[in-house]
Amino acid sequence: MALYIVAMIFLLTDFGTKDIFVGVMKAVIAGIAPECSVIDLTHDIPPQDIAYGAWSLSCAASYLPAGSVAVAVVDPGVGSTRRAIAALMADGVTYVAPDNGLLTYILQKYSCAYAIELNNPEYWISPNPADICATFHGRDIFAPAAAWLSRGVSITSMGSAVAAESLMRLAILQPQLTEDTLEACVVAIDHFGNIITNIEAATALALFARYSVSIEINHCVIEKFVQMFAAGPANTPFWYIDSSGYAAIAWKNDSAARRLRVAVGMILRCELKERN
Amino acid sequence: MALYIVAMIFLLTDFGTKDIFVGVMKAVIAGIAPECSVIDLTHDIPPQDIAYGAWSLSCAASYLPAGSVAVAVVDPGVGSTRRAIAALMADGVTYVAPDNGLLTYILQKYSCAYAIELNNPEYWISPNPADICATFHGRDIFAPAAAWLSRGVSITSMGSAVAAESLMRLAILQPQLTEDTLEACVVAIDHFGNIITNIEAATALALFARYSVSIEINHCVIEKFVQMFAAGPANTPFWYIDSSGYAAIAWKNDSAARRLRVAVGMILRCELKERN
Amino acid sequence: MALYIVAMIFLLTDFGTKDIFVGVMKAVIAGIAPECSVIDLTHDIPPQDIAYGAWSLSCAASYLPAGSVAVAVVDPGVGSTRRAIAALMADGVTYVAPDNGLLTYILQKYSCAYAIELNNPEYWISPNPADICATFHGRDIFAPAAAWLSRGVSITSMGSAVAAESLMRLAILQPQLTEDTLEACVVAIDHFGNIITNIEAATALALFARYSVSIEINHCVIEKFVQMFAAGPANTPFWYIDSSGYAAIAWKNDSAARRLRVAVGMILRCELKERN
Repeated sequence: MALYIVAMIFLLTDFGTKDIFVGVMKAVIAGIAPECSVIDLTHDIPPQDIAYGAWSLSCAASYLPAGSVAVAVVDPGVGSTRRAIAALMADGVTYVAPDNGLLTYILQKYSCAYAIELNNPEYWISPNPADICATFHGRDIFAPAAAWLSRGVSITSMGSAVAAESLMRLAILQPQLTEDTLEACVVAIDHFGNIITNIEAATALALFARYSVSIEINHCVIEKFVQMFAAGPANTPFWYIDSSGYAAIAWKNDSAARRLRVAVGMILRCELKERN
Repeated sequence: MALYIVAMIFLLTDFGTKDIFVGVMKAVIAGIAPECSVIDLTHDIPPQDIAYGAWSLSCAASYLPAGSVAVAVVDPGVGSTRRAIAALMADGVTYVAPDNGLLTYILQKYSCAYAIELNNPEYWISPNPADICATFHGRDIFAPAAAWLSRGVSITSMGSAVAAESLMRLAILQPQLTEDTLEACVVAIDHFGNIITNIEAATALALFARYSVSIEINHCVIEKFVQMFAAGPANTPFWYIDSSGYAAIAWKNDSAARRLRVAVGMILRCELKERN
Repeated sequence: MALYIVAMIFLLTDFGTKDIFVGVMKAVIAGIAPECSVIDLTHDIPPQDIAYGAWSLSCAASYLPAGSVAVAVVDPGVGSTRRAIAALMADGVTYVAPDNGLLTYILQKYSCAYAIELNNPEYWISPNPADICATFHGRDIFAPAAAWLSRGVSITSMGSAVAAESLMRLAILQPQLTEDTLEACVVAIDHFGNIITNIEAATALALFARYSVSIEINHCVIEKFVQMFAAGPANTPFWYIDSSGYAAIAWKNDSAARRLRVAVGMILRCELKERN
């Protein structure tokens, strides 16, 4: 794989934009790589919600140009022993993040060409570890790393190689299909309270065409399936294909997650009945 | 008119910035036109408020450099039969939007040099219509169109020509002046609840200099006129010239729209009395 | 000092991002300096909070590349006689702002190489003063000034020189140390309600190592010191070193400022007792 790098950095954090944290990360990048475009994916990941951050990053990933750098910082463990990492994936994007599960879906989607721990202080904001703020690695480690990568510095020189298998992953049950059941997992609750599963659109469309897929959650049976949210019924939950490319459960004008008491990580056991 | 294109795209949407929708639009643009600057006008148009989006776009329009592209997406009809359009206007800016009235004021302000329906799939995110998400044309149609335009692709090749007269406009009464009355229209309620009319500043200044302009709304007479909001009285509504360049009605430390029960589209019938 | 200019403008305002104000400032900059990168520090300074804006700008300043331009607009006096200024500081950054105290800490941190009043209308949005909106100097004066500076126009040509000593400063008591007391000042309340003082980290670390530093505020004694917020105790206020580089007082899961009834400008009189 060529290490050709587009001077383009994407940012995804839970920092919000009320404070100057994101602005300062951009200033640090601009100081190192003034020609680089910096593009916000979002800074409104719910604070410390690694699962939602991981899912959001994965949704954006399909649209990131090869050669670009994506920095994801949702980092409740900043200052602890969790590693700071960079991983060049087979989609040609280098992901820079804390090693806390944020790359779970990226590591599922693409194979990892090369991964490192960002432990070469030459590419930190200061080579003196005492200057690194224990609560703001976004500014002091991740932003400089991304900026140097965007300038074409090789990932191999920025820290020690680590095995891709050693990178932390969130425990996500892969969809399991038997003759008459489907087990899948809730991977995110979006801002509208829609329940996003890890059943891919193509799989879901094939299943729903052949079977009636029903699940009972909190005394509610969800069975109705529509391709688009807009076509869903009122006053009752339903399956639909989310614009992220996954099957999801919605409740119009309400939060399905709240109504059904569903949280990220919950396993969904669905019954399949052949349609007549 | 030369089709010289500045590589600069302005975005105005109601997507908010909590989700990755805007970030993904930018990633799509970056994938096609990596050198292009993408500039946010705002993403906080109230959800589905086409009137406010149209007015905001019009306020920004005077400041957009000729040759740039402006993408506006407030699109409650996404997935229906409403057209996706691009219009090169006499200000040299190409506007990309759903054909739902978002360009109402732009079409009033400038003559339309050339308009198309964006129906050439070569310039969509994928030439296969099955890949186009019925709920996210911002990502799949509008962003790619803007990116290709910014790279200099001619608007004529991106879809079928449509007549400018066929483009949808919101019904807006143009200000009507008689000897002793002025009728105008509420075009927007801003975030502070100020009531923005379609009476242009120059017209308003001439009228208010010569006449006392009074209107009774919800048992309240509005007559006092000040040039600047800051100079307005307390505890009573007043006319002022908004920074958008239009006459407006405010109520200090309160929402004039809520206090006076005024909504967009309402017709204002004012009495004119010659000042002595 | 060389007047070499990086085409990079940083923005800090209290405009929010719900309206198109910031977008229009960027459009104005793009019209004058299309190649220039524009980077948001934040637009969510609490409305008209000059003290918080000044402190935020100062926190960001250490990270701004030499040669860039920083525009700060928190401007309750817009349209009054307060001056619009630009100041080239010894950090190589040119700061553009209203002369209302926003540059207080910048003027403390760096010496001022050259300062002007932005009174040459050639570099306003229009050379005709009648076109300048009395409520939106961000668009009509500050944005164009920054854009021309980013293109290399010399600050000396953009207005009359003013003495650095004449620039307005907020009244901030500098930390005063005696044998057994320390007086300092509250310079900001951050979005979490943490109380930021003007005691620099290095000074604070030396003091806290040698002394127990205690202060009673609103019947509460604050004495416990931790280096990092995360290490602080629950249910009681404590001193810590903020990521801005200053000593601060926090109350976990609560607003220290609200609990202790502390406001910006308040003087903190601390007692020092030598640790045994």
